[in-house]
Amino acid sequence: MDVVILTIGSEILKGRTVNTNAAYIAGKLYAAGFNVVQERAVADGEDLITRALGECYGAADFVIATGGLGPTRDDVTKAASCVFFGRKLVCDKDYHDHLERLFRRMGYDGVPERSRGQAEAPEGAEVLPNSQGTAPGLWLADGGRTLILLPGVPREMQHLIDEQVLPRLIERYTTTGAPHSALVRTVGIGESIIAQRIEDELDERERELLNYYPHGGFVDVVVASSGEMAPASGDAVKKVAAHVRRVLDKHVYAVEEKDIWEVIAQYLFSHGQRLAVAESCTGGLLAEMITSVPGASNWFSGGAVTYSNASKRDILGVPGSLLENHGAVSEQVASAMAAGAKEKFIAQWSLAITGIAGPGGGSEEKPVGTVYIVLAGPEGISCERYSFNGNRSQVRHRSAIKATELLWRALHRSAAG
Amino acid sequence: MDVVILTIGSEILKGRTVNTNAAYIAGKLYAAGFNVVQERAVADGEDLITRALGECYGAADFVIATGGLGPTRDDVTKAASCVFFGRKLVCDKDYHDHLERLFRRMGYDGVPERSRGQAEAPEGAEVLPNSQGTAPGLWLADGGRTLILLPGVPREMQHLIDEQVLPRLIERYTTTGAPHSALVRTVGIGESIIAQRIEDELDERERELLNYYPHGGFVDVVVASSGEMAPASGDAVKKVAAHVRRVLDKHVYAVEEKDIWEVIAQYLFSHGQRLAVAESCTGGLLAEMITSVPGASNWFSGGAVTYSNASKRDILGVPGSLLENHGAVSEQVASAMAAGAKEKFIAQWSLAITGIAGPGGGSEEKPVGTVYIVLAGPEGISCERYSFNGNRSQVRHRSAIKATELLWRALHRSAAG
Repeated sequence: MDVVILTIGSEILKGRTVNTNAAYIAGKLYAAGFNVVQERAVADGEDLITRALGECYGAADFVIATGGLGPTRDDVTKAASCVFFGRKLVCDKDYHDHLERLFRRMGYDGVPERSRGQAEAPEGAEVLPNSQGTAPGLWLADGGRTLILLPGVPREMQHLIDEQVLPRLIERYTTTGAPHSALVRTVGIGESIIAQRIEDELDERERELLNYYPHGGFVDVVVASSGEMAPASGDAVKKVAAHVRRVLDKHVYAVEEKDIWEVIAQYLFSHGQRLAVAESCTGGLLAEMITSVPGASNWFSGGAVTYSNASKRDILGVPGSLLENHGAVSEQVASAMAAGAKEKFIAQWSLAITGIAGPGGGSEEKPVGTVYIVLAGPEGISCERYSFNGNRSQVRHRSAIKATELLWRALHRSAAG
Repeated sequence: MDVVILTIGSEILKGRTVNTNAAYIAGKLYAAGFNVVQERAVADGEDLITRALGECYGAADFVIATGGLGPTRDDVTKAASCVFFGRKLVCDKDYHDHLERLFRRMGYDGVPERSRGQAEAPEGAEVLPNSQGTAPGLWLADGGRTLILLPGVPREMQHLIDEQVLPRLIERYTTTGAPHSALVRTVGIGESIIAQRIEDELDERERELLNYYPHGGFVDVVVASSGEMAPASGDAVKKVAAHVRRVLDKHVYAVEEKDIWEVIAQYLFSHGQRLAVAESCTGGLLAEMITSVPGASNWFSGGAVTYSNASKRDILGVPGSLLENHGAVSEQVASAMAAGAKEKFIAQWSLAITGIAGPGGGSEEKPVGTVYIVLAGPEGISCERYSFNGNRSQVRHRSAIKATELLWRALHRSAAG
């Protein structure tokens, strides 16, 4: 089944908000075997939305729209849908009663004036209950065309997609099932080098199964039939995926939807080892990535963000003489930070990062982008100097990803050997 | 001038990549007085792109497309543009020579086979040099229709927009100039409460100037004429903006494009004061937000991510008896963490966060979402207990934003009083 995702909101077209909703919906639909043929965003405005709906139904008979269901004056998605389908906006008695109970529980004397519109829906629409907010989702089927309206608040939209929309879609539509596909996740190697290495030995039909998805320092290789091809056989996908894994070998950290920190978590947890970090230029970014994994407290002791010389000395025990003689951005200080983190946080492994993220602070000898990363482990300590390109945020991100890669490699080696 | 932004890439439609490129381009165009009427995303595929171009030119005569200019087999944007405009793909001699020099400097023996296509462009297209990568931007004018092609790698796309595309747009097209507008940035108050408070005293024409943009715990109120209205006079915008600032008063942290941490940075730096943080459940997120501000080392000493009881005790000096008697998620431990951070990192201000981000770890007494936030300052210490909704990532984010708000309020009060 082909779907168009329509995002409604002036904030998108003015560039004030990144459209994460479309990505969420697209990912969920793809995984369930539905085909998103187009994404589109238009500003708030009854005419604009009505026109966009007409164009969307030129590309598919199924439209999922988000945004413009809120209580403020610029929320006109329901009105526009009524115009487009020639329906009236009517009060949904059941949903109104639900809102009434909700607001009374919160201490209100009934549904406040400004929220009454939330119980209105195009005549004949199915109301999809929203336990995360006051705007319900709406499912409107009209002849061959179906329109699903969801609120734009990401948490509410996600809840409705997962709990209300996907179960109905799967029940009401038959798909060919999720496409045969295999995932190979890599770190430390660029997209074009990957393509060069793996495509040489494949024939044209096999090459067409390859898709490359770079994301924040990683590249995913997905082996799968694309939307316009005949579905590939499971065997062809398996054969190509095995080839990709073999050729990229030392860069492959996962062959399933698992992020690199989940892989690291498994190694550490299963070996009863703990990790600590010491960050200067990344300022907490590495610790934040680590602790985004649920249960990280089982193997992560903590980290120090030492942004001053005094804190490097007092918290991590970096000798003042090293800071004076070599400067905070140096191999010597990075190594002392790693040693300090390992000792003070009581861990078998530690990572330390110190560098110049910019825009200021660079020198001829150590320009912006110069970063030292140290990994200390049970077997010893290693230090690397890097020169990263990009602005402050990119240098910080690349540093944290490189540190992650170094730790993953070491754990991988120690598990293999 | 009306523009359509077209994003090309299967990764977008499969939900593997969030479309940050469209937001970047839209923001830059809006600020320069151009009007983005639609955003659209389609998968890699010559037919799909050709068809999308035809539809885009139904909505505007100016299309900016990103993606599909890379060296791999699925990069077919140039080929599709040639089909659409009936042009031939030819080698740009100057750009080829540039690539030749570039690759020789990197130690190659000329342009490698796989990168030769990078020097090809639709006949008659203007080549926009890209100092950040090997794929140049392309500017193709054909009768009344203009197409700009940019690579999809965010850093390269951003560089080309800033250095090549915007200067040409501003030189070649007259706009009405940036719209009259005023920005009011708020924290700690929801969109619908804001609307209720400020719209009551305004007439219909004034209300139409209001736009609300919630983003990650903040709400921006923008007073401006919208795309379909006659441009509002500067006086009307000024009057309404003053009203908004007055009514929202205690929630307004900025009236310009400045984030709340930049505002906090100014207070601290100008008073010669320093900040430290102690994080448990937020795991470095707060420190990461703080250090995203360039020059943060002038006022931020650092922070401890204490993810174990031992590290709370050893690094921050939290008494073991408090941890035993009250648990790590308690007012007592949060207060001791804040006091420890203030002392160990030598700072006048500190923030401490400890809580249960989930999914595990909750209890009846302290369910998932329970978070203690402590602010310690020159005048004393205050502790608040919160119950945040949402998943792990949302609880962490809300905690960090609330801590930010508490500090901003205290600094604001101390600056005012």
